[in-house]
Amino acid sequence: MTYWTLTEPDLDRIAIGVGILGTGGGGSPYQQMLIAKALLRQGKRIRMVRPVDLPPDAQIIGLGGIGAPTVSIEKMEEGEEGVRVLRAIEAHTGRKVDAVLGDEVGGGNGIYPMITAAKLDLPVVDADGMGRAFPEVQMTSFFVYGQESQPAGLSDAEGNTLVITQASTPEMLEKIMRAATVAMGCTACMTTAPMTGDFVRRFGIAHTTSQAWTLGDAVLRARSDKRDPIAAILAEAGGSPLMRGKVTDIERRIGGGFVRGRLTVAGLDADAGRRITIDIQNEYLVATEGEKRLVMVPDLICIVDAETGRPIGTEEQRYGLRVAVLAIPAPPLLRTPESLRSMGPRAFGYDFDFAPFGQSAEARPVAAYTAAATTASTPLVHSGELQ
Amino acid sequence: MTYWTLTEPDLDRIAIGVGILGTGGGGSPYQQMLIAKALLRQGKRIRMVRPVDLPPDAQIIGLGGIGAPTVSIEKMEEGEEGVRVLRAIEAHTGRKVDAVLGDEVGGGNGIYPMITAAKLDLPVVDADGMGRAFPEVQMTSFFVYGQESQPAGLSDAEGNTLVITQASTPEMLEKIMRAATVAMGCTACMTTAPMTGDFVRRFGIAHTTSQAWTLGDAVLRARSDKRDPIAAILAEAGGSPLMRGKVTDIERRIGGGFVRGRLTVAGLDADAGRRITIDIQNEYLVATEGEKRLVMVPDLICIVDAETGRPIGTEEQRYGLRVAVLAIPAPPLLRTPESLRSMGPRAFGYDFDFAPFGQSAEARPVAAYTAAATTASTPLVHSGELQ
Repeated sequence: MTYWTLTEPDLDRIAIGVGILGTGGGGSPYQQMLIAKALLRQGKRIRMVRPVDLPPDAQIIGLGGIGAPTVSIEKMEEGEEGVRVLRAIEAHTGRKVDAVLGDEVGGGNGIYPMITAAKLDLPVVDADGMGRAFPEVQMTSFFVYGQESQPAGLSDAEGNTLVITQASTPEMLEKIMRAATVAMGCTACMTTAPMTGDFVRRFGIAHTTSQAWTLGDAVLRARSDKRDPIAAILAEAGGSPLMRGKVTDIERRIGGGFVRGRLTVAGLDADAGRRITIDIQNEYLVATEGEKRLVMVPDLICIVDAETGRPIGTEEQRYGLRVAVLAIPAPPLLRTPESLRSMGPRAFGYDFDFAPFGQSAEARPVAAYTAAATTASTPLVHSGELQ
Repeated sequence: MTYWTLTEPDLDRIAIGVGILGTGGGGSPYQQMLIAKALLRQGKRIRMVRPVDLPPDAQIIGLGGIGAPTVSIEKMEEGEEGVRVLRAIEAHTGRKVDAVLGDEVGGGNGIYPMITAAKLDLPVVDADGMGRAFPEVQMTSFFVYGQESQPAGLSDAEGNTLVITQASTPEMLEKIMRAATVAMGCTACMTTAPMTGDFVRRFGIAHTTSQAWTLGDAVLRARSDKRDPIAAILAEAGGSPLMRGKVTDIERRIGGGFVRGRLTVAGLDADAGRRITIDIQNEYLVATEGEKRLVMVPDLICIVDAETGRPIGTEEQRYGLRVAVLAIPAPPLLRTPESLRSMGPRAFGYDFDFAPFGQSAEARPVAAYTAAATTASTPLVHSGELQ
């Protein structure tokens, strides 16, 4: 088995990259990065595995934070949430989990599963169901392509834990999970139904942790070489600049377990006189200039600091920030007619169809896997029934 | 084992009695009675058992509807909700349920567990945790005296089902259950943690189904003999009349999974010129006349049709109804300092202490048990681990 074992410098890169892919949401990568680094210092390990290397019958579950990012930034995880929901799902199915992944690579949720994995010494699959962040549970390629709605689990920092043993649809699962999360104080850890290795290989967005690392590495190398980090991001991600400017208005309200609102950016320098507004539901959904829709879900709208390339989450936005607004094409699997029904503009209540921005491309695994392949390494063994 | 096997005439009596004990809430007894009768006609049986006859280690769970009565009257149960939550709890604990009970005897919830019991041929314990109806899950003598917060279950008419495997407090359990119920469309079937036969015998409000039957029988006999059914209710329940009058105002709003509001009754005839207002949270909570608080939770405020003695739920109240407002002392177990912390006025946000109305008394089992004791009957066997 070929693993990519993460180091602290890897986590620095991944934290920047998942922030970019988070399109404003997915929770703060910073806190998750600090927790993950602390675990490495305690001697724990975080091993990434490519989807192609998974045994077909491996039992995989997705883990992540659910709630409003604005709340999770102040109400920290207690740390054992992921372990509790994983154990609750194992107890329900009677089968051990062999590896975890993030349903959502964007934001803190791109690091979240690594923490549970480190605690339990489980590998983390280098794939997710979004290739970005989305506000609702059912908005993943896994659910689009047939993941079961149950069992799913939820646990909060006080230990409150529940297992959804039956949900009529993924949308109903989202509704129940969201309501329970609000009751728990608006932030919790969730897991969706176990998937097989074969299913993840076929319907996951592959190598998105690798992509995050590559983006973060490009930013750090550009900073170190005094090059423009934004150009470096766009070169790696195949994206385009929309505008550089200043945040002139930010409206945010928390309701129903989400943060919703709208951001306005006024152009500066070469973009002076332009004005872009961006709708928010945890993430940046649609960017509009005058009457023209520039970019829309599932394509990625990323906002980064204009100087450093640091990604800026919806909850960090404030008047006066100098930012660059970027567009990155969504992965091919998010642009299929099936996926667009779950993740396109109409799924968010908009009255228009998806118009793509730029050319999709598959993400590539980092070179570290190839290096690892030359060294001996623990195999990922299918653990089988619980004792 | 001594059982009381219910007949259709028994269900007629119980439906009236649980309506009276429902103090306006607990869901409509009428629908539940019709479903229970239909099951008897299909050859199913409903066997009641006294708490004193339970094997000490029997596994008992409480079942009932949760939500706003105003919704449940229009959104019917699908019928298998109780079976689903019971099976979900059995699967979680690995142990079969030996008998069921209603956590709440008041309203439709006084009949609800009989339906699941008839479907699964399980006995129903003649006891509950309220001796009436209350709006919140944790307001039972069981929780007051140490019932665990988990596991608890919830299922709706579409099959959505969840198991709460850990809840930090009974109040948190209520909060999570209520939020999930709202997500499910405001009505669902719930179950609380399994209890032993010994625990139910010590901390249940005993013989409350018997009490409901006795009240209903008194009403039917009075009607048949052309006597005043209200006097008959009061004689059986040890209660007092507060006023006869006309409903002059009813305010109801649904929010957070409850119906809340206020009812005003203006006196007629001997009570002309008087005016009582009654606060509502699913049930009638506090009756006030001018500056004077007449009756308050946990004592029972019951409103019945002035002519027929038919109990009138909060969701059926409307302008012009001729009603009698009655007060019935709560069972002794609800008036302890421990219970008052969960069910007294302060638990509902009022700024005053409980002032009792009248003298508490324990309910007695119906004579049918003694008759049954002389005939051979199936023993209640502890079923043990699930196969």
